[in-house]
Amino acid sequence: MPEAYENQNDIVLSTRVRLARNLAEYPFPARLDIKGRQKVCEAAHAAALAIAPELEYIDMAELSRAKAVSLAERRLCSAAFAQRDQGGALLLRKDCRVSVMLCEEDHIRLQAYAPGLALREAWELADSVDTAFSRKLNFAFSEQLGYLTQCPTNLGTAMRASVLLHLPALARLGRVGRLAESISKLGLTIRGAFGEGSDAEGALFQLSNQVTLGITEQAALENLQAITLQIAEQERLAQRELLKDPAIENKVWRALGLLRYARRLDSKEALQLLSLAALGACGGALELPLDAIYQLMTDVLPATLSLDPAAAGDRDAARATLIRERLKAES
Amino acid sequence: MPEAYENQNDIVLSTRVRLARNLAEYPFPARLDIKGRQKVCEAAHAAALAIAPELEYIDMAELSRAKAVSLAERRLCSAAFAQRDQGGALLLRKDCRVSVMLCEEDHIRLQAYAPGLALREAWELADSVDTAFSRKLNFAFSEQLGYLTQCPTNLGTAMRASVLLHLPALARLGRVGRLAESISKLGLTIRGAFGEGSDAEGALFQLSNQVTLGITEQAALENLQAITLQIAEQERLAQRELLKDPAIENKVWRALGLLRYARRLDSKEALQLLSLAALGACGGALELPLDAIYQLMTDVLPATLSLDPAAAGDRDAARATLIRERLKAES
Repeated sequence: MPEAYENQNDIVLSTRVRLARNLAEYPFPARLDIKGRQKVCEAAHAAALAIAPELEYIDMAELSRAKAVSLAERRLCSAAFAQRDQGGALLLRKDCRVSVMLCEEDHIRLQAYAPGLALREAWELADSVDTAFSRKLNFAFSEQLGYLTQCPTNLGTAMRASVLLHLPALARLGRVGRLAESISKLGLTIRGAFGEGSDAEGALFQLSNQVTLGITEQAALENLQAITLQIAEQERLAQRELLKDPAIENKVWRALGLLRYARRLDSKEALQLLSLAALGACGGALELPLDAIYQLMTDVLPATLSLDPAAAGDRDAARATLIRERLKAES
Repeated sequence: MPEAYENQNDIVLSTRVRLARNLAEYPFPARLDIKGRQKVCEAAHAAALAIAPELEYIDMAELSRAKAVSLAERRLCSAAFAQRDQGGALLLRKDCRVSVMLCEEDHIRLQAYAPGLALREAWELADSVDTAFSRKLNFAFSEQLGYLTQCPTNLGTAMRASVLLHLPALARLGRVGRLAESISKLGLTIRGAFGEGSDAEGALFQLSNQVTLGITEQAALENLQAITLQIAEQERLAQRELLKDPAIENKVWRALGLLRYARRLDSKEALQLLSLAALGACGGALELPLDAIYQLMTDVLPATLSLDPAAAGDRDAARATLIRERLKAES
């Protein structure tokens, strides 16, 4: 791995630690009407104002559809939450390192983010915000079951840690299915990055811990860390193997040619080409700023792109322009 | 048309004038055995040594398959003649402006070439070589039928003048078929550049006079000149129309991206992409040296490419390298 890649960030785009919490005084969101949910949102908002005023309160009902979906594209909220109208709110730190979904599946879903593989950093951030909230809010907790959550699969630590992986070589070699089987035995799960059951467009996958009961946060994080390192190493070996094939090398260069020259790109093709270019950059075939490519893999998504005033007229043209400019300026 | 384009050479790649001649003392080639053909070749060779020593004598039997096919790809001999083993020879001027097939369909098929639309220039060159030959050789000629040729469709002037046209817009708009119908009424014919009935790969077409009897060379050339100018103007209008379509503009840019980045290109794809890039260059969308692109449309053909020692290993890779280097150096 070139020294330039810190935190495994040739393979690991980002780390997220998510904590589910519920207020003891209220039924779970599924059993609340809109007014009830709004009360929960207000209670969390009041707490946030006291302990974390840097978090901006965003009422999902007041958000345009494009802005809401863009939050999901940037993984700052779930896809389902982006569709929420009344009775849901998001607390968001300006730098997007902390986001808190209010009245998603649980009253509070606190998420902390870090670039690359940085489970400890993300965990500490999540933990510090959680600790601050816990001084103002009364979380439902049982000595036996740990944090109480609407879905029993989250009981215990109620912590879901995940890493976003770019696995173009393993995906191309058809090895992700086998990988998924073997890691499920280790208490982890891997799936397409664009949600449960989604095709892994752009070869982006989310690896996360599955078990929350009978295991400490620390043990879960260590397990995820170890498996992530193994998968990243497998992916690197597969990349080197794959790039020896002149047909793949050709594909990688062609992808770069299209990214730098196309005047129109839909989001699916853009993701495929960016993934190929990233494969080429990781494997040493292309000299390209990998961070710019990975950033584009979010920025070219339809809703996020549409927030750019330049994209008002023709989104496919704006997408191609954005990619050309980034890959020109940064190369 | 930009001033940079002389002789209509945005649309017209080259001009060729071909004269068929037969020696009165010998039967037509189809009725000659190999020895008889060799005698005809020797007679023509002896005449050439006397009147045009700049013509190199090439015995087709001594030529490698690749060299022979490359002559056909460069339109210096017919495709059938390139397959000829014994009893055929080519007289070729070093600059490839004159080539004489010996014992193709006729004893002598004298061809003169000029870049762009230059019927007068090519005609004068062909005529001067023909005149010189006629002082040494006894051409079969009838007052009534003109020059006698093996195929009666060539009787009369036995002159076939042709221009090589790049018609990407008319081809894309499906207008070449209608064009072919209307010009056949004017005594001309248009067909794919890679031989009779060939698909027009790379949108290259050959337009030539069909009638040789009852018309002077001058009249035939003037007719061809006038129709060529009309078709070129139609093509230019169609190009401008087409390039207003963002989807076509996108195609043109993508083609350039692939030409500049691909590591492997087969000849069919290379021709298609070069044709698109030429369309973009003609229409003003791309700033590219059109002459380099048109030159590549011959140089990337399989046999011609294989003559380059660099292409020994992997022809598709060598083709991509050649294109990248030319489009880099010249842009």
